[in-house]
Amino acid sequence: MPVDSVRTAGSAEESRVYTHEAINLILPEVRELIAANQPQEIRQSLEDWHEVDLADLLEALEKPEERLTFFRAWERDEALALFEELEDEVKAGLLEDLTHRERLWLVNAMSPDERADLFAEIEPEERPKLMALLSPKARAEIHRLLEYPPDTAGGLMTTAYVAVRQDITCEEATAIVRKAAETAETIYTVYVITDTGVLVGVISLKTLILSRAGTPVSEAMETAVISVNVREDQEDVAYRLRTYDLTAIPVVDNEGHLMGIVTVDDVLDVIREESTEDIQKFGGMEALDEPYPKIAFGRMVKKRASWLSALFIGEMLTATAMAYFETEIARAVILALFVPLIISSGGNSGSQASTLVIRAMALGEVTLRDWWRIITRELATGVALGTILGTIGFLRIIIWQAVRPIYGTHFLLVASTVFCSLIGVVTFGTFAGSLLPFILRKLGFDPASASAPFVATLVDVTGIVIYFTVASLILSGTLLK
Amino acid sequence: MPVDSVRTAGSAEESRVYTHEAINLILPEVRELIAANQPQEIRQSLEDWHEVDLADLLEALEKPEERLTFFRAWERDEALALFEELEDEVKAGLLEDLTHRERLWLVNAMSPDERADLFAEIEPEERPKLMALLSPKARAEIHRLLEYPPDTAGGLMTTAYVAVRQDITCEEATAIVRKAAETAETIYTVYVITDTGVLVGVISLKTLILSRAGTPVSEAMETAVISVNVREDQEDVAYRLRTYDLTAIPVVDNEGHLMGIVTVDDVLDVIREESTEDIQKFGGMEALDEPYPKIAFGRMVKKRASWLSALFIGEMLTATAMAYFETEIARAVILALFVPLIISSGGNSGSQASTLVIRAMALGEVTLRDWWRIITRELATGVALGTILGTIGFLRIIIWQAVRPIYGTHFLLVASTVFCSLIGVVTFGTFAGSLLPFILRKLGFDPASASAPFVATLVDVTGIVIYFTVASLILSGTLLK
Repeated sequence: MPVDSVRTAGSAEESRVYTHEAINLILPEVRELIAANQPQEIRQSLEDWHEVDLADLLEALEKPEERLTFFRAWERDEALALFEELEDEVKAGLLEDLTHRERLWLVNAMSPDERADLFAEIEPEERPKLMALLSPKARAEIHRLLEYPPDTAGGLMTTAYVAVRQDITCEEATAIVRKAAETAETIYTVYVITDTGVLVGVISLKTLILSRAGTPVSEAMETAVISVNVREDQEDVAYRLRTYDLTAIPVVDNEGHLMGIVTVDDVLDVIREESTEDIQKFGGMEALDEPYPKIAFGRMVKKRASWLSALFIGEMLTATAMAYFETEIARAVILALFVPLIISSGGNSGSQASTLVIRAMALGEVTLRDWWRIITRELATGVALGTILGTIGFLRIIIWQAVRPIYGTHFLLVASTVFCSLIGVVTFGTFAGSLLPFILRKLGFDPASASAPFVATLVDVTGIVIYFTVASLILSGTLLK
Repeated sequence: MPVDSVRTAGSAEESRVYTHEAINLILPEVRELIAANQPQEIRQSLEDWHEVDLADLLEALEKPEERLTFFRAWERDEALALFEELEDEVKAGLLEDLTHRERLWLVNAMSPDERADLFAEIEPEERPKLMALLSPKARAEIHRLLEYPPDTAGGLMTTAYVAVRQDITCEEATAIVRKAAETAETIYTVYVITDTGVLVGVISLKTLILSRAGTPVSEAMETAVISVNVREDQEDVAYRLRTYDLTAIPVVDNEGHLMGIVTVDDVLDVIREESTEDIQKFGGMEALDEPYPKIAFGRMVKKRASWLSALFIGEMLTATAMAYFETEIARAVILALFVPLIISSGGNSGSQASTLVIRAMALGEVTLRDWWRIITRELATGVALGTILGTIGFLRIIIWQAVRPIYGTHFLLVASTVFCSLIGVVTFGTFAGSLLPFILRKLGFDPASASAPFVATLVDVTGIVIYFTVASLILSGTLLK
């Protein structure tokens, strides 16, 4: 059984490889069964497959008519589960090929948040066609869900939750849960509301099951409800779900009315997307917003070129700064040799500092008010790190000179210049790297855009100025006369 | 009510600030109530607080006797929930101050995975004392849980799950769940095992509740079980939970015996830790493994200095490479001006490429087998990006020269040198940046350690060689004669 190898695979990478291999192994057989139109045999040979893997398998079939036959092989519930796991564009393609009757059933049976996502994804001119298929209730739900931007609590939420009034008993509530179980996204947390729909408590199915006969819901429920506002950012939803160890979080409007819930599985995807965005920004580019192996070449080059060009134009200032010290370089070419070493050390220490601060901000460990404490600590760190690197640089020149004397008679002065410059450059790099995220956040920008290479560029120019200024001071009577 | 402001806070940062503010606001009142020893009033004034926030509040009390009185104000279940949210060292301190009787109850009532974590955290000499308090069952559990490294499925799992035999009916299973509800971590997924404890299926509480009378569990259960091996890495646990939208995943040994479950709340913490580690490695340092604002200064400097020094020593090769071209620089100082610009462009394009490849690997979008496809695509990208930057550089020199003629009569040749070098350097940077993660992974290292600055260092040295070689070719008859 191929799926068994999926389950016991050794790593995330391997497990993905195994899923792909399992699909490649079984694909010819599935194709034959499709050609012979044997739905029962298809189901049998894929009995133990999870719908997530079945969706991958369907996507591996390229011809629309193959996909259609494969999809029709499954019974209603299985087909629905499989359908919800498909990519939105595959969903849209499949929908077009189904009969009107099948389509009608499918779009009305989908969970409200998946339906809203599909709706947002399809071509605008296709939307009225899809809308016409929906029940009035589903249509109202779509309108309600599409009201909010996709990266807010409202954009993530589903309306498939179970809510009960606070004045009923736990048995009555359990009966409501049982009835709602078919369609609700989660029945394990039940939300308690007033007559006007204001969220006043939550009660777990566990508590309902364990409660004594006749207990009112209002007595058994938990009143310390953690919720999010419908307009809050998805990062805040993730933050609160994680902090309070929830599997679903209720979404309320400004007046506290229960609007929907966000479940943890959707939040896991959000966390992955947000981390990818942050990491790509750290890497010095716009977030791709598409999987790297799938994005079109032109679009990728454009996203990467825009940042690279901006950095390049900033970095041009290094040539201007160097030109300013052209006379010094002409007099002592040896100074030019250490330029890359000095400025890259500043850049590296700057990226370290900005990475640490930005990440700590994203985790909520550091806030704007901490700026003074952080900056002073980073300044001290910068001096310490600069002294360490300066000492290594100093020793390197001394030792090198002993082995192969290429630095001339003033090698001790050159070594001192490198030592002092490194302290200055690394301290400035660390300082700038830690300050910049605070400034960007204060100005309302995303600090992750103060990505490492941006700091590096700023520090490069300053590094050249610091280095040659130190050199002028130390070498003015000797090498630079 | 302070907690209300926690709930409706505007962002993750603000929500954290509000929690801290709420704690600071109520702290004097709580301290007074503690001094007056009024447990009931303490409970009342914090009625709507979530245990996560109560734990933060307890940690804000600094004196051990205040913490003790505060802790004792709560009833058993509340005290247990609060206790489990405390930091391990606070837990250990509190445990010491409790009476033997209280301690006995508490450590036996804790959930098995929390207990194992606490046990792993305390001083080795304290362990026998704690062990002596435990029931034989709890003692066996600890031994079983501590057998696995903390970053594996076995290290994350809890044994507080509900399992039933496959030959019973759904009603019988529901009765078992009801009985287990008090202690189990989750009762919403029930695991189905054979007589020998081999996992054969899962059944949701929803299905149990909805099943018709007399249905055997083996008929209603889902047999396409997604599980992880007890020795698999925590990243794989996270990958599978996310891919298959699970709230808990069963953990099995090599023979398929059910060993425990990992719940999604623990995985959310894992994902946060792993992303932080990756981001810190991208930023060019060892992972701190501690929250940035809390880590001791010396330990932080050490972790940052080790990487910076390694990079610095690598970067020294740039001085060696520059020294090799000292004659060229002496003949045409103008060449030195563009060194920082050229090599930083190579570095930036290299970090872009390595960031994209490493992240795509972490997400399972790219595997080792894709190397050829990715490298060739990155080569093409490099040529495109290099041409764009080269053109900007070329134009910059031409335009500058028209305004302020500082590049001499051979400015067109200098501009051509910059143009060609940028194509070469950016292409090489992109190529090296995308290849390195594949090589590191192939050799069994973590590709995230091929962090951007490391690539930059490699590319810097090569960039110098490329630049001066191109310069020798283009300028040998003119500037460099």
